[in-house]
Amino acid sequence: MKALIITADNFEDSELLVPYYRLKEEGIEVDIASPKKTRIKGKHGYEVEANKTLKEVNSDDYDILILPGGRAPETIRREKEALEIAKHFFNKNKLVAAICHGHQTLITADLLQGRHATCYKSVAQEMKDAGAIYEDKEVVVDGNLITSRQPSDLPAFLRETMNILKRYRNMNKP
Amino acid sequence: MKALIITADNFEDSELLVPYYRLKEEGIEVDIASPKKTRIKGKHGYEVEANKTLKEVNSDDYDILILPGGRAPETIRREKEALEIAKHFFNKNKLVAAICHGHQTLITADLLQGRHATCYKSVAQEMKDAGAIYEDKEVVVDGNLITSRQPSDLPAFLRETMNILKRYRNMNKP
Repeated sequence: MKALIITADNFEDSELLVPYYRLKEEGIEVDIASPKKTRIKGKHGYEVEANKTLKEVNSDDYDILILPGGRAPETIRREKEALEIAKHFFNKNKLVAAICHGHQTLITADLLQGRHATCYKSVAQEMKDAGAIYEDKEVVVDGNLITSRQPSDLPAFLRETMNILKRYRNMNKP
Repeated sequence: MKALIITADNFEDSELLVPYYRLKEEGIEVDIASPKKTRIKGKHGYEVEANKTLKEVNSDDYDILILPGGRAPETIRREKEALEIAKHFFNKNKLVAAICHGHQTLITADLLQGRHATCYKSVAQEMKDAGAIYEDKEVVVDGNLITSRQPSDLPAFLRETMNILKRYRNMNKP
């Protein structure tokens, strides 16, 4: 089982680090992809290594896509490869977990039509305009899509994400 | 089941936030105690509410004590109440999980004689001088004591902590 985080400079540090460490706690391999293969820096100064470029990502390798927030999604939503990766996950009905501003990539990829979701309050109008059904809750699960609003929702966001991932893992046991 | 985090200004942000959110993900109530009941600030600028003073803590209420690192332990180890709380957890053989510089409170309370433990490399000599058996590993478990070195050890630190907490919870089910 393998996870992909797509982000860039100015990520919201806790929204990247908390899921990253949580997945690793569970023994899940995590790649971090960004426009360039370099160290990237969060809004609070934490640095992580982007070990893949967006171009290098083979979406078939991954079971879940995580989209942290911060200002990184402003960069990511302009990257054609990021939109293609997001579309792959939706087409294959694979898990996508987005928090805060992470959804902006899904909005630009036009993947939220008719989908129940939540997001950071300042993104809500944009998400509704993209056809999503906005709910002001700590976590919303709609099929393959798990969404939360902000860092304080991380416990609920990861509770749902890990539960669904574990069900998926059990279903696919040989 | 209830957890207590003891810390102060200049905590290492990820070493507080990642365990805090992880425990809440599991439905465990978490109190944060500090010398004053106020908002405290991490080295990277994250703020959390200390909802208890050290004086207000009733140690009997808690199943686990978490000691994050950063520069906060320099403050905490000078607080008589913090040392008393740490001693209570050891006397009652309740779980204590310390990471990075978090151990400094345990060193001052003289609780590490003959105990296997790891810590941030710059704390190692001080910990050995206090009688601990230092091991350079991502996580060391010795009875009630779980220790790790640094933020990148958080997955192993929390894997052991959560496994032991869950065993404890199952043992105490009515």
